[in-house]
Amino acid sequence: MQKYIAEFFGTFMFVFLGTGAVTVAAGSTLTIGLAFGLAITVSAYAFGGISGGHFNPAVTTAMVINRRLDGKTAIGYVVAQVLGATAASLMIKIFVSGLGLATNQLGQTDFPKISVGLAFLTETLITFLFLLVILNVTSRYHGNSDFAGVAIGVTLGFLIIVALNLTGGSLNPARSFGPAIFAGGSALSHLWLYILAPELGAVLAAFVARIMGSEG
Amino acid sequence: MQKYIAEFFGTFMFVFLGTGAVTVAAGSTLTIGLAFGLAITVSAYAFGGISGGHFNPAVTTAMVINRRLDGKTAIGYVVAQVLGATAASLMIKIFVSGLGLATNQLGQTDFPKISVGLAFLTETLITFLFLLVILNVTSRYHGNSDFAGVAIGVTLGFLIIVALNLTGGSLNPARSFGPAIFAGGSALSHLWLYILAPELGAVLAAFVARIMGSEG
Amino acid sequence: MQKYIAEFFGTFMFVFLGTGAVTVAAGSTLTIGLAFGLAITVSAYAFGGISGGHFNPAVTTAMVINRRLDGKTAIGYVVAQVLGATAASLMIKIFVSGLGLATNQLGQTDFPKISVGLAFLTETLITFLFLLVILNVTSRYHGNSDFAGVAIGVTLGFLIIVALNLTGGSLNPARSFGPAIFAGGSALSHLWLYILAPELGAVLAAFVARIMGSEG
Amino acid sequence: MQKYIAEFFGTFMFVFLGTGAVTVAAGSTLTIGLAFGLAITVSAYAFGGISGGHFNPAVTTAMVINRRLDGKTAIGYVVAQVLGATAASLMIKIFVSGLGLATNQLGQTDFPKISVGLAFLTETLITFLFLLVILNVTSRYHGNSDFAGVAIGVTLGFLIIVALNLTGGSLNPARSFGPAIFAGGSALSHLWLYILAPELGAVLAAFVARIMGSEG
Repeated sequence: MQKYIAEFFGTFMFVFLGTGAVTVAAGSTLTIGLAFGLAITVSAYAFGGISGGHFNPAVTTAMVINRRLDGKTAIGYVVAQVLGATAASLMIKIFVSGLGLATNQLGQTDFPKISVGLAFLTETLITFLFLLVILNVTSRYHGNSDFAGVAIGVTLGFLIIVALNLTGGSLNPARSFGPAIFAGGSALSHLWLYILAPELGAVLAAFVARIMGSEG
Repeated sequence: MQKYIAEFFGTFMFVFLGTGAVTVAAGSTLTIGLAFGLAITVSAYAFGGISGGHFNPAVTTAMVINRRLDGKTAIGYVVAQVLGATAASLMIKIFVSGLGLATNQLGQTDFPKISVGLAFLTETLITFLFLLVILNVTSRYHGNSDFAGVAIGVTLGFLIIVALNLTGGSLNPARSFGPAIFAGGSALSHLWLYILAPELGAVLAAFVARIMGSEG
Repeated sequence: MQKYIAEFFGTFMFVFLGTGAVTVAAGSTLTIGLAFGLAITVSAYAFGGISGGHFNPAVTTAMVINRRLDGKTAIGYVVAQVLGATAASLMIKIFVSGLGLATNQLGQTDFPKISVGLAFLTETLITFLFLLVILNVTSRYHGNSDFAGVAIGVTLGFLIIVALNLTGGSLNPARSFGPAIFAGGSALSHLWLYILAPELGAVLAAFVARIMGSEG
Repeated sequence: MQKYIAEFFGTFMFVFLGTGAVTVAAGSTLTIGLAFGLAITVSAYAFGGISGGHFNPAVTTAMVINRRLDGKTAIGYVVAQVLGATAASLMIKIFVSGLGLATNQLGQTDFPKISVGLAFLTETLITFLFLLVILNVTSRYHGNSDFAGVAIGVTLGFLIIVALNLTGGSLNPARSFGPAIFAGGSALSHLWLYILAPELGAVLAAFVARIMGSEG
């Protein structure tokens, strides 16, 4: 049970700090990227010792493919991640409402400027790169366990910065789910893309990382 | 005595760098958040070996509840923290005055845009999350003592960024006390909230962290 | 083969995050510098255990001179680095095109404000300083292998920030090659400078670092 | 001799990155603070294994007082630091001139907005706090040698941010000397303050750190 609580709070922190930086704080591009990315860094050090620190269904998928986690536990992880993200978005909605801001702007992900094909390519590519870093830096054969939390969070932060104007930079189905169910609109109707593309990127990374020797 | 000196200077650094970034430096949201947060990071590495590096009465409360510090020493810690914060606010007042700026703007905390209920909820929630990170990352059972200072400071920095437009993001009764006694006004009349809400968040986190196995 | 894949993806990350921050994200000076610099930091921790983490022909040159890498492997490294940078620039071109932006603005390096002599001096000096940090911080005699990735990436980030208005801050022939072949114009006709000057800086640093005892 | 070369290049990096961020890059407050601060962090990891990583006459003074360095070596350190800072300012002058900017704006330190007494207090206080962190975090009794470079650089960065509008935030006689001799004017006539006040702060910190047990 402790594992699922850890995944719940880590994902809560991710969506709370990241979408909070977008909405309540109205932060700069750098602030937003670092808020999302470093939320993973701090949660990895604080809660990773309990659950491994996924906080993202796409990460959990890659870990199952490369046999670092069993499928049954993985289901519990994904449920906890989705609940954590949803609880965080509920809190952000309460804050946004309390400030008198539009309650359909909750830091949801969408791609108003580009085609659906390019959006799919973007989320697939950046999640692929993200998982490639994760799987190699946490590899017991050539990784660096001490600095893994820093490397993973910083990678995520700058991938989000690059993708912000394209797709909002999700890389995480739970992160897109939370705000979408409260914001509705095209964020909700496009949610399928933010589930399928990151998962595809994670699957591809699992295979490429294996070629690079991440699993020995 | 060395412990109390360490708590004094760590809390001085926190209020000096943080409220100095707000007032003297007129920094951006990111600058302010990082100034507060990383002040704790650096003080944790510099002075944490002496006192444990609390620099915050709410942290000290949680440590007493989870039996990592005895109550008598805790009282000395809180006195040192309040004195450190007050000394820092006095210095900031001297600087602000020297620059010809308004001496009732000292980086104090307040909540002009939201209701008292939402302000209380905000400070309780963010201090709860902050302590959840602290108690887990410093847990001898599943924590990471090397990176604890980084994780704690970065968490604090981004929680403050999210809360800046809501309550100013205190999470620390001493940090609110220092500027309030020199600035007066509603920062002083609302000081009770910045004592009670963080303390409540810390108490809740102490219990949840125990469920997560932080105390073994 | 794993080594070359590692150099490919590390250099891809460097050019993708760095020139993506310039173009797609339209980031601030700090965002751009950190995107380039921290891309090297994260790739060093993720892929450095496989290849040593060069991601830059000038770094590879210095490593060959100081006998940390054999010349034959070095050729494979440089090929992989150039391919990685080119692939990243192709992706950035696709994104820029998808957003309807000018496809000859791909984060290429050039020096419109200064003379060719000063541009050459700039790239030589900053690459010299960069390699001086790399060769000393990774020295087995007086370096710090744990923090090498942080030190190298942060050094690069701020050297780029200083040089941004002078030469764009390349320090890396592969990084200049990728965007130049798609952007064309003076970025392509000036490419020779971004190959020769960093390589010269790297050669000079290899000798000075040896005087400082980096090779024992 | 290697020690003096290390002090030369570390101080060169500090003045080059810091005043380069001010002048050539026209950076934000955060960019400037981080450029100065993190230059010390990276130089500490790269060159600290050779010389101990002072890069500042005030730091060298405190180390001599607390018997961590002998007086004769200290003189060589200060000479190397002053030469490094001067060489960096000469390079910045060449860049500024090449860009057609005013060559009397080289990132020098001065205090146009406040009284000389408050300027002296400011530089004394912030250098005192800086050395208090240095002496405790590098203490063999309660310090943290791994994270010392991070803690020292980040502390310096945010102390400079707070002091930027007051005195420019020097904390380092060599850093003020380099730009002042090329910029002239009141930066040169006020140079005495940027020598005496940081040195006084360092002396005070040496005693307080000893009370805190930094020397055992």
